[in-house]
This record gives sequence, C-alpha cells and structure tokens, in this order.
Amino acid sequence: MTSPGGDARPEDQQAAVTVAMEEVADIVASGAQVVLTHGNGPQVGNLLVKNEIAAHVVPPVPLDWCGAQTQATIGVLMLNALEAALAARRVSAGRPAVLVSRTLVKADDPHFTDPTKPIGRYLPAAEAAKMVEHGQTWRDMGAKGWRRVVASPEPVECLDAAAAHVLLDAGFTVVCAGGGGVPVIRADTGAIAGVEAVIDKDLTAALLARQLGADTLLIATDVDAVMTGWGTPHPRPLGAVTVARMRELAGQGEFGSGSMGPKVEAACRFAAGGGRAIITHLAAIEDALAGTAGTVVTRGGAAD
Amino acid sequence: MTSPGGDARPEDQQAAVTVAMEEVADIVASGAQVVLTHGNGPQVGNLLVKNEIAAHVVPPVPLDWCGAQTQATIGVLMLNALEAALAARRVSAGRPAVLVSRTLVKADDPHFTDPTKPIGRYLPAAEAAKMVEHGQTWRDMGAKGWRRVVASPEPVECLDAAAAHVLLDAGFTVVCAGGGGVPVIRADTGAIAGVEAVIDKDLTAALLARQLGADTLLIATDVDAVMTGWGTPHPRPLGAVTVARMRELAGQGEFGSGSMGPKVEAACRFAAGGGRAIITHLAAIEDALAGTAGTVVTRGGAAD
Repeated sequence: MTSPGGDARPEDQQAAVTVAMEEVADIVASGAQVVLTHGNGPQVGNLLVKNEIAAHVVPPVPLDWCGAQTQATIGVLMLNALEAALAARRVSAGRPAVLVSRTLVKADDPHFTDPTKPIGRYLPAAEAAKMVEHGQTWRDMGAKGWRRVVASPEPVECLDAAAAHVLLDAGFTVVCAGGGGVPVIRADTGAIAGVEAVIDKDLTAALLARQLGADTLLIATDVDAVMTGWGTPHPRPLGAVTVARMRELAGQGEFGSGSMGPKVEAACRFAAGGGRAIITHLAAIEDALAGTAGTVVTRGGAAD
Repeated sequence: MTSPGGDARPEDQQAAVTVAMEEVADIVASGAQVVLTHGNGPQVGNLLVKNEIAAHVVPPVPLDWCGAQTQATIGVLMLNALEAALAARRVSAGRPAVLVSRTLVKADDPHFTDPTKPIGRYLPAAEAAKMVEHGQTWRDMGAKGWRRVVASPEPVECLDAAAAHVLLDAGFTVVCAGGGGVPVIRADTGAIAGVEAVIDKDLTAALLARQLGADTLLIATDVDAVMTGWGTPHPRPLGAVTVARMRELAGQGEFGSGSMGPKVEAACRFAAGGGRAIITHLAAIEDALAGTAGTVVTRGGAAD
C-alpha cells in the first residue's frame, strides 16, 4: 500500500500520516498482514534545497541519502501514528516496524542518460545554470522557471525484502521501500553502492509486493478510482478491469505520464503476476478491499 | 557494539563505516549474533546547520527528525559495507538489516530543564542570541564562540527492540538504536511523540543489549583500553575490572564527563545485569572478545 506523503512542514506531514494510519489501522485490525510504502517527493525537495543553500558551510549529501533520510522521518511518524491508532482500537497484533531499505537499479538503465523526473524547487535560468555547472541536469519548465531533472530508473529488486518477510511472518506491520527505496547499483565486483536517482514509489511497491508474495497491492491516492475520459465532459470511473484492458487504455494515452500513469503501470505489473491491484482514495481503502469501491485490476476473466 | 561515525563529508563517512564493517564482518563470520549501534554527532550537526541556514526557504525539522535521518544514511552505508565484507569472506549468515528505532525518555527527565549536551556548530554571540530568541539554549564556550546545548535525557526503553529480536533470531545482523535512538516521550494518553533531545548512544546501547538479553556489550572507540591516570605521567590501562571498582574510579573523576565517562557508565550498567562489557579500540575488537585486549567489565569476582 502506498499513502500520500502530505505537505512538507513537519506538522503537515504528521497530520497527513495520522489520517492515513487511522485507515491502515482498520485494515490491520481486520487481521490482514500489511506492508506499507510511502512517497517522499516534498520531503526530498526540502532536503535538496537545504543541501544547496548550505553547501558553502556543510558538505551536501547525495540524492540517494536524501531519500534514505525521508524513510526515517516518515517512518517514525508512521510508527507513532499507527501504534496510537492500533491502541485506540485495542488491537495488539500488527505493531509496526520500519526498515531502511534499498532498491537495486541497473547501472546502465537508459534513464541515467536521459533523466526526466523533475525534483526540488524551481529556479530562475541564471541560478539553474550554476547548478548545471556542478554537473546537474536542469530543464526549462516554462513560466515557473527551471527545475532539476534526475533519472527515474526501473526498480529491479528490493534488496531488503527478506528482512521485511521475516518481520511480516512474526506479526509486524512493516514499513519498507519508502520513496521507492534508496536507489543502489551493483558494481562488477558485486559491491552495492548508492546512486543519484529517484525510483518511482508505485513501481517499487508493485515489485516488493510480488517479491513478498502479497495477494493484494493497494495504491491509495486522492481519487476514488482511475478514470477514463479524464478532462472531458464524460469522465468514467473504472471498476473491475483486466490487465489487458488497462494496458490498452494506457496505450491510448488515457492516464498521462505524471501521477496516474505510473500507478496504472504498477497495478498492471502486479496483477500480471496473478494478484489483485487496487487504486482508490485513501478514505475508501476498506471498501475497496471488500470489493465495493475503487479500480480493481486482475490478470483476466473479470468483467470490464 | 558502537562504532565511530567518522567525519561528516559523505566520502569520509563511507570510509569510516567501511573500516568498521571489516572488523564487524570478522565477528559475524565467527558465528556470533550481532546487533550494531552507532553515533551520529557530526551528522546531526550538519543537518542542524542546514536547517538553520535554509530556514527562510524551507521549514526546519525538529532535532529528533535529524537524529532519525542519520539512522537511515549511516544505516545504508552499513548495509552496503557489511554485505560487501561478508561476501568477501564468503559468509552467507548474518546479512544486515537496519531498523528505524525510537528510544523512550521521560517527559519530566530533569535534563530537559537543564540541557547540557553541546551540539552543532559554534556561532558568535550575536548570532547565538538570535537562536535563543527562537527558543533554543546556547552557551558561551569560550574562545570558539557559543554553542547550542540540548537535553540528553536518560534512555528508558528501546521501543523497537522486539523487531530487532525477531530479525536477530532469524539470523540477521541488526543495525538499531543509531545515535542513541530517536528520542520520544509517552503522553498521558499513551501516545508516543518525538521530543527535541539527544540520547547518549552508549547508554542506549547498554539498555538495548539488556533488553535483548545479550551476553556481551562491546563499545568500540579510539583507545585500546580505559585508562586511569589519563593525562598524568603514569597512565595505566584497565584490563579485567569489576563494576564496583569501575564505579569507584569513576567517582574519583578518572574518566571525565565527555566521551569516556558515558562509555564507562554504559559498561557498568550492562555488566551490573550479569553480562560482560568491553571497551576497546575498533581494531582490537576480535582480540577483546577473545579476552586478550581491552577493558572488560563484569559484575564481580574477576581480578582487577
């Protein structure tokens, strides 16, 4: 399951996590084994700005370190909020644990030579030019200014899934692969090292869910269901849908490349392995699990 | 076991962790179950400076969040370095896992009203005065300038020890309680929340070791053994020593309040519970475990 990261002020993050963990607690209370992932866009953006502004005083840290840092801060918020929500329900099972976790990508992933994922703040052209001198890639985004773009390589393996599995088997609710996981590559020597990239959180969630043998991938977002005809006079929510149909619609450009596109792709990848992928609003996740809300993607046989 | 955090530049941190994990890998290879903790002083210092300098652009995060962030960055370095060191030894057991972990302190701990732990950078008096206006406590440290002081409350419970235990039982080497753990307090409602503080890493390590039922607490530092007569013409290393004798020497002011004092106190607290506490140089940890190096503290009966 993925949940929104909220806004970037600490109190906003805490509020967003608290709301999400109330919903999650109901699912844990129902007896389900749950692994949680989360996004980290605003948080990584903040850390990058701090890196840049303070670079004359303290050494900046690489982008993958920023991602790691958000796993811990969001992780602690989730620990505290989920424990409180479970205690309020007098549920003793499913207490949370947070793993710092890495996601392997290929060193020769083509996204490294053609970075496209915008991150961090907008800057005027002159300031962006200075960052380019430091080896970064920045793109002109129009009226808002320039923005850094980084590689968003394909997730290949969640390297810490085994630890997640152990905790899950012992009855823990596991927080893992936050922000898509800390991106790492494997050298020819076999050694693992961090790499400057941002991995799509939904694609990583789908990968982790398959590695763990999950029966359901639930992607919580801010709409009740995936829509076709979005932005037209006749938008239509998708309910039960096959992977084949979903890919067909994606091929017709129904879902865009921004937020919903990766969620649909993640859902298809997971469902193609035989599981059930759900995309719905955070507030509807219980109904969606019961089959009465959201977009539910399965490998085949279901009516569209 | 605690290990030095190294300097604050990313490449320095990686180098320091790599050296430490080579030593740790030898112990894991011997078949021992290992839990690792680590310090985070320079890293938290850096994050605080970034917070301050960028505060006009992005919202600063609380001190406990900075501590959490260092658990993840140092944790990933430890994951990568220990895996590589184990692979080089063809050891498949003891693969590492990193937990984001919290340490409970009392909301009414007296250190909160009398903060004494210096953190972060030195500032001139005028700049320190501005930070005091924002509610922080700063002290005049003499020639170097002013420095922020924060509470260093007593660790009461490692809240995520149960997850560590599960991973340890499953054969993992567990990284946990880094930087003394993310400091949290429990409200009257039972809810857990972060608090601005820094918990001594060695005292937390001793607490965690007792919670986990460890037989040995190993504190790796930059001297071969604890010394009496430090700074005199006749310093003398302590070998095997009882808790009672160690506390007697501490009472005589032998170890200072800075770095070695808390290590000695941590060793005594752990050994008082019946285990063996060792303080030695990182490079001597294998010899110390074999009984041929370092200061070894036990509850009683051993020769001093």
